[in-house]
Amino acid sequence: MASKVKIFAPATVANVTCGYDVLGFAVQQPGDEVTIEMREEPGIEIKKIDGDQGALPKNPNKNTVSVSIKPFLKHIGSQQGFNIYLKKKMPLGSGLGSSAASAVAGVYGANILLGEPLSVEELLPFAMEGEALACGVAHADNVAPALLGGFVLIRSYDPLDVVQIPSPSDLYASIIHPHIEIATKDARSILKKNIRMVDAVKQWGNLAGLISGLYTGNYELIGRSMEDVIVEPVRSVLIPGFDQVKRAAMKSGALGCGISGSGPSIFALSNNSNTAETVGNTMKEAFFNLGIQSDLFVSPINQKGPLILTGS
Amino acid sequence: MASKVKIFAPATVANVTCGYDVLGFAVQQPGDEVTIEMREEPGIEIKKIDGDQGALPKNPNKNTVSVSIKPFLKHIGSQQGFNIYLKKKMPLGSGLGSSAASAVAGVYGANILLGEPLSVEELLPFAMEGEALACGVAHADNVAPALLGGFVLIRSYDPLDVVQIPSPSDLYASIIHPHIEIATKDARSILKKNIRMVDAVKQWGNLAGLISGLYTGNYELIGRSMEDVIVEPVRSVLIPGFDQVKRAAMKSGALGCGISGSGPSIFALSNNSNTAETVGNTMKEAFFNLGIQSDLFVSPINQKGPLILTGS
Repeated sequence: MASKVKIFAPATVANVTCGYDVLGFAVQQPGDEVTIEMREEPGIEIKKIDGDQGALPKNPNKNTVSVSIKPFLKHIGSQQGFNIYLKKKMPLGSGLGSSAASAVAGVYGANILLGEPLSVEELLPFAMEGEALACGVAHADNVAPALLGGFVLIRSYDPLDVVQIPSPSDLYASIIHPHIEIATKDARSILKKNIRMVDAVKQWGNLAGLISGLYTGNYELIGRSMEDVIVEPVRSVLIPGFDQVKRAAMKSGALGCGISGSGPSIFALSNNSNTAETVGNTMKEAFFNLGIQSDLFVSPINQKGPLILTGS
Repeated sequence: MASKVKIFAPATVANVTCGYDVLGFAVQQPGDEVTIEMREEPGIEIKKIDGDQGALPKNPNKNTVSVSIKPFLKHIGSQQGFNIYLKKKMPLGSGLGSSAASAVAGVYGANILLGEPLSVEELLPFAMEGEALACGVAHADNVAPALLGGFVLIRSYDPLDVVQIPSPSDLYASIIHPHIEIATKDARSILKKNIRMVDAVKQWGNLAGLISGLYTGNYELIGRSMEDVIVEPVRSVLIPGFDQVKRAAMKSGALGCGISGSGPSIFALSNNSNTAETVGNTMKEAFFNLGIQSDLFVSPINQKGPLILTGS
């Protein structure tokens, strides 16, 4: 058993238009790279953080990468100490599940170094504790797909019940991250506490259609179902250029397009990699035309979750 | 080509707990028997209605069995006249889609007699017009499963988009119809126009879980997902004994239990026919203990929709 392991944990798109708070999927890039090594002394030390431009705390009680490990160690009754080297290879505060990726990488790596006392599925509650640090609430719609890969439905939070949903192999995501910032807490606070029943019925009809389309590989159904009549109309106001970018994506052949998580990133799904590239480029261009710089990521759905890059 | 055909169209369970207004399934019994014959003179005449205890109108403009045929004839440009003999073999106003069954049987039979100018799927809008007569609005969650069989998702009403959802072969429904009456319009009017976002999230998480369970034949997931936090708490108040009957069903091994359509019938799903029989009997007993007579129907899911009994 190695004493050191390097883990990649993927970015994730939560909500996926009509699946607010219950659906997310993982991509193959971008993501976090976390090196975690066992050490003699107990306790967790974050030795180094790269790629965050100084934004993230090295205090192990305040960084999701380590916060997810502590309750895991307590659960399995281990006193093991770890040093952590965190390389953010994805934008922060972007709506791409940056904190979830770190939380997953940390606890996933620690579990491997300790000989996998828990299954990957069993790590979810601990990764959620890391996520709770970032968002104030223990959400699972980024953490669960980052940990398990693919599309994941959070059917219920109490009790926690996650369902892996298959997706067709040619499904690609184009994700555009504009260089503007929205805090998740703000994006959440502007949502209404009450919604219209007629809108809710539309939303759950669409979500049921999206789930059905994913099971059957019916791209047209996936596309028709990707409509969010509840959250997008409110949150998109916070993203300058949202309408133009979405229109550009749909015009270039995307199946559907929406806000990634709480934004400001915008994602689109396409039924092949070429279209996904074209869609991504036109989204980037649409932001550029508004004077907004952006990062583009085009990737198939990540079906595996975290990867072990070296060690173990 | 025969000039006369006898059609069976099935009863249906709409809403299916968490799928208010978007999900329904068909059963093998009870249902309507409609004999429809071509005649020389144009126009539609309802010659006879049995089993309705005089409740249904013979006026062809006021009975769903004929109202569904008129727009169909107009659409295909036919002046054909028909005589109709309607045998209600299911309770009226029971939440089992009685008007939908008649509407489906009528237009399905007329289409066959005319040499099937339209596909079964294409008959849906016409059957919905019959249903609109009964409910005031053109709903499809009874009509679509009665016409297509199995579980049917109404992803969207505008444009109309229906998706057939597979279900495992050992899934059985127990349906209990208590001898009390609720008008669909009343049951609809007591629902709130606004609902809490947290409840809506629970509901669409459950619906996505139910759809997923149906695709994978995961009975436990189907059961866990059959929870309605929005409509059932309001409508169940109209059904005396609902809580006792549901508790009886769950205690006897049902996967889940809820109101059929707008009630007062209550349905339960089980993962085999024996359990479904037991569940049905305990539901009947629970009503009986409250002094309420009831009819019990136990049936597998009807995967075929209407049946041609004779003719064609």
